[in-house]
Amino acid sequence: MLLEKITGPADIKKFSMDELKTLAAECRSALIHYLSKHGGHCGPNFGFVEATIALHYVFDSPKDKFVYDVAHQSYTHKMLTGRQKAYLCEENFGEVSGFTNPEESEHDFFNIGHTSTAVSLASGLAKARDFKGEKDNIVAILGDGSLSGGEAMEAIDWIGEQTTNFILVLNDNQMSIEENHGGVYKNLAALRESNGTCQNNFFKAMGLDYIYVADGNDLEQLVAAFKKVKDIDHPICVHLNTLKGKGFKPAEENKEAWHWHSPFDPATGELLYKGNGTENYGTITNQYLMKKMKEDPKVCAITAAVAANMGFFKPQRDEAGEQFLDVGIAEEHAVALASGLAKNGGKPVFSTHSSFIQRTYDQISQDLCINKNPATIMITTASIFGMNDITHLGLFDIPMMSNIPNLVYLAPTNVEEYLSMMEWSIEQNEYPVAIRQPCNGVHHAQGQVQTDWSDLNKFEIVQKGSKIAIVALGDFFQNGELAARLIEEKTGVKPTLINPRYITGLDTELLEALKMNHNLVITMEDGVAEGGFGQKIAAFYGTSDMKVMVRGFKKEFIDRYDAKEMLKENHLLPEQIAEDATAL
Amino acid sequence: MLLEKITGPADIKKFSMDELKTLAAECRSALIHYLSKHGGHCGPNFGFVEATIALHYVFDSPKDKFVYDVAHQSYTHKMLTGRQKAYLCEENFGEVSGFTNPEESEHDFFNIGHTSTAVSLASGLAKARDFKGEKDNIVAILGDGSLSGGEAMEAIDWIGEQTTNFILVLNDNQMSIEENHGGVYKNLAALRESNGTCQNNFFKAMGLDYIYVADGNDLEQLVAAFKKVKDIDHPICVHLNTLKGKGFKPAEENKEAWHWHSPFDPATGELLYKGNGTENYGTITNQYLMKKMKEDPKVCAITAAVAANMGFFKPQRDEAGEQFLDVGIAEEHAVALASGLAKNGGKPVFSTHSSFIQRTYDQISQDLCINKNPATIMITTASIFGMNDITHLGLFDIPMMSNIPNLVYLAPTNVEEYLSMMEWSIEQNEYPVAIRQPCNGVHHAQGQVQTDWSDLNKFEIVQKGSKIAIVALGDFFQNGELAARLIEEKTGVKPTLINPRYITGLDTELLEALKMNHNLVITMEDGVAEGGFGQKIAAFYGTSDMKVMVRGFKKEFIDRYDAKEMLKENHLLPEQIAEDATAL
Repeated sequence: MLLEKITGPADIKKFSMDELKTLAAECRSALIHYLSKHGGHCGPNFGFVEATIALHYVFDSPKDKFVYDVAHQSYTHKMLTGRQKAYLCEENFGEVSGFTNPEESEHDFFNIGHTSTAVSLASGLAKARDFKGEKDNIVAILGDGSLSGGEAMEAIDWIGEQTTNFILVLNDNQMSIEENHGGVYKNLAALRESNGTCQNNFFKAMGLDYIYVADGNDLEQLVAAFKKVKDIDHPICVHLNTLKGKGFKPAEENKEAWHWHSPFDPATGELLYKGNGTENYGTITNQYLMKKMKEDPKVCAITAAVAANMGFFKPQRDEAGEQFLDVGIAEEHAVALASGLAKNGGKPVFSTHSSFIQRTYDQISQDLCINKNPATIMITTASIFGMNDITHLGLFDIPMMSNIPNLVYLAPTNVEEYLSMMEWSIEQNEYPVAIRQPCNGVHHAQGQVQTDWSDLNKFEIVQKGSKIAIVALGDFFQNGELAARLIEEKTGVKPTLINPRYITGLDTELLEALKMNHNLVITMEDGVAEGGFGQKIAAFYGTSDMKVMVRGFKKEFIDRYDAKEMLKENHLLPEQIAEDATAL
Repeated sequence: MLLEKITGPADIKKFSMDELKTLAAECRSALIHYLSKHGGHCGPNFGFVEATIALHYVFDSPKDKFVYDVAHQSYTHKMLTGRQKAYLCEENFGEVSGFTNPEESEHDFFNIGHTSTAVSLASGLAKARDFKGEKDNIVAILGDGSLSGGEAMEAIDWIGEQTTNFILVLNDNQMSIEENHGGVYKNLAALRESNGTCQNNFFKAMGLDYIYVADGNDLEQLVAAFKKVKDIDHPICVHLNTLKGKGFKPAEENKEAWHWHSPFDPATGELLYKGNGTENYGTITNQYLMKKMKEDPKVCAITAAVAANMGFFKPQRDEAGEQFLDVGIAEEHAVALASGLAKNGGKPVFSTHSSFIQRTYDQISQDLCINKNPATIMITTASIFGMNDITHLGLFDIPMMSNIPNLVYLAPTNVEEYLSMMEWSIEQNEYPVAIRQPCNGVHHAQGQVQTDWSDLNKFEIVQKGSKIAIVALGDFFQNGELAARLIEEKTGVKPTLINPRYITGLDTELLEALKMNHNLVITMEDGVAEGGFGQKIAAFYGTSDMKVMVRGFKKEFIDRYDAKEMLKENHLLPEQIAEDATAL
């Protein structure tokens, strides 16, 4: 096996074309082996095996620098740069992250995970190279899906004005996670159909030079193209027409399902562990929205290329028709579009991950909240139970969003509250509203849930008690409930339990009243504590005798963590809360 | 005078072409009258008089909807929609904001002020129109400068896929505030030079239809073009070649200086009120950076089209050469570029306004801070003393930035600290650093200032006292000093005065030690209190007996405020602090 013996990219430079082809087959087998047991990004990696080999064959990494966009297609790159064991041997699977990672290798320059960043980051490498008078090649590898992101567009525009070496490899597999959206994809199609000769050319319009590789999975074509552009003295786009999922039939045939995939039977592609069909918020959201859209043609669901997170797979998208808007990877546009829709009587619901809403601080502030337009934003995987890659953490949306004026940010604790809040938000005309979808499984309300949330910042006392009050926000409510029970068991005194429901304001009347017969307030939130919800309560009580224990996560970037461990480290387990509270 | 009698756009529809031309001359006179006495955006408005008249002549506002990007060019629009008195009569000047404002008129749809938002917002209006089955025209008016912003690019791409009426008017005056930067401007030039016929066409590459107007200040050409596209059934770009500053010679000749201008003599263009030549942070920053860049070719200054805010006018830009990087209106790219530069040994300093850094939450978090690259970000006008338009407030950067892990956000209190922090930041290799430039005039250090800031989160005790400790952050330090003096005068007890210097972390040792002989800590910060610095201190002391009084601004969007009034309303005046503290 060639792959096992490779110590670094230098080794493959001696390979013949046949050996390169053998290596490609071996890499693809290793991918199938790893992905079928571990799960991960399938389509993007299967389609980029040959291009990765050709890049390493032609260029001299790490002197020449590759920057992968999103970096979910970097598995083959990792195999060729000394990390093949992590794909070949099950016991080594844990040694690599799912993205490039400078801590793993000198061939990786950035921790990446969000889309559309590579051209910008690489252009910084290029500019520093020029300042230092060095001569290496800077290569940014961008997927066609990432092209629609504002950061990528800004960077390509800037690169188009530069006059030194810069190679933009466009890995055009004609797909984002779902199908692409945006006018520029018509241009990519025209370029492919004309073998790169079509006169109107986005990259040339942006000031870059351009060449086209008709079969981006053909090693000969790839090597020839990269040789041609190596050491070029100006910016150029190398447009590769690749096949997403290449070489693994199920992934070639159903590109969307195989963009990322859980462990599967490598022979058939069948899922190894099937879901147990229990309720989840994706399906719940989707069922609600599908019904709502049928009832009202002004309701629409907006996604920025992550349709699945509100349960919009192909059949649902087709059924929703014009009322489902996929803007492509363009979160900024999604928020401003929602604001415009709401201004003109539309009823938009934009849903994205906590980690991806980070792209839109300014749009939430300026386009939406200054204008007080009644759009709804649904924040998903906003939790320690969300995605656990360092680049996809769902722990920062509370500080980021809840300190923006005019926004009403709601924290439901169960399905019925969640649906009631969504219904209210869609139908009201006064506030921009965000809703933080619970992430700790599906819980149901005990009793009737209110339908009108317009009396802002009214916390709910779920259990009246004394001495200690627990204010447990959103999906930490159930843990708050447990902590309350444990405290009562320990002390015999029943604590007060509060479901605050609103993240963006305090129920000062209720908090004031607590002073009567409480001396400790404990706040619990599923995000970093700094800048968050509990600190507002601490400040509220700052000049009083009330003690406040603020519990949330430490401000830090964590990677591939265990949620239970993190809860423990941050003293957020119900038994720890109970212990710490009684110790006070 | 025609202008005086106009009650709304309907009136001008009856005008002959000659009357329209007379009206244009009257509008321009009104602009000169208003701007010479009041100050404001000159070039953008002078250049867009004819196009505004033609738009209102052809379309039916407010049924047809105009969305102005930045909206700093909307003065003529305001004159034609019943607000002409606010430009003609000095006593009415205060009746209009400098941007579109829905509270002023049904012809204004959004409070706008940041760039590159109009296409997105307007596309929302268009989509809602389609949902409602209505037939009005949606017109987004974008400047060429705004075109480089990611949000605009995302929106144009999305529009390019739509199949209903949308009119993108590109007001191409060949300038941003300074000269444009980006490869797409080469394409705009080629389009102008070829009278719109050049085969490579950015807008067509994005999927839009396209027409060109060679003289965008010629009413006949404009009216013909707008008539042609009115009620069009698909998206089209109407590319207008306009002259920035048109009709006012000084503004035509020096476009950069006349983009925005203070009151002037309308005969000569001479400034009415000349600066007194005192020190300011723009000049101080510039002098430091020019010297630093000469000493080290790896140091560079980056701006996103607001070069003046670090004192880079044309002569300084020319002198700095390649070491001065204007990325155009592209803040996201600026931060990621800086990260890439720092990764490869460059020493970048990116400077922008507090309000504009809002575009980059995700880039600061993902591209910069996860990767811990040692770039420097300079935040200017981050203060109640900054810009006072609702869209340009400098009060939100502390909650936005200081809760991002790995960032070191510094708050100098005087010039020497500021320069020392900048020097340290540029030369160190461990942290992404942001520096909050003081905005309360130029103060100087009393003694020696430290040069090494790597011992993070060490607060400085400037005055040792007892009972009360004042922690006064950044440019509120001088007010803290005053408050301390007043408290001592009132009570005879000298309070402790602390300069925290670091926004992103607490000096827990020092705070712990205060418990010994203090019972009240007062925090003061020049930004909204929620999610900010003081609340962290309140939470730190939450379970202790220490009382904490957190002082900052209320979380709200305020417009054209008086700084002193705002300080008073938020109990931030030194005498109020002293009074409230002694009352406790």
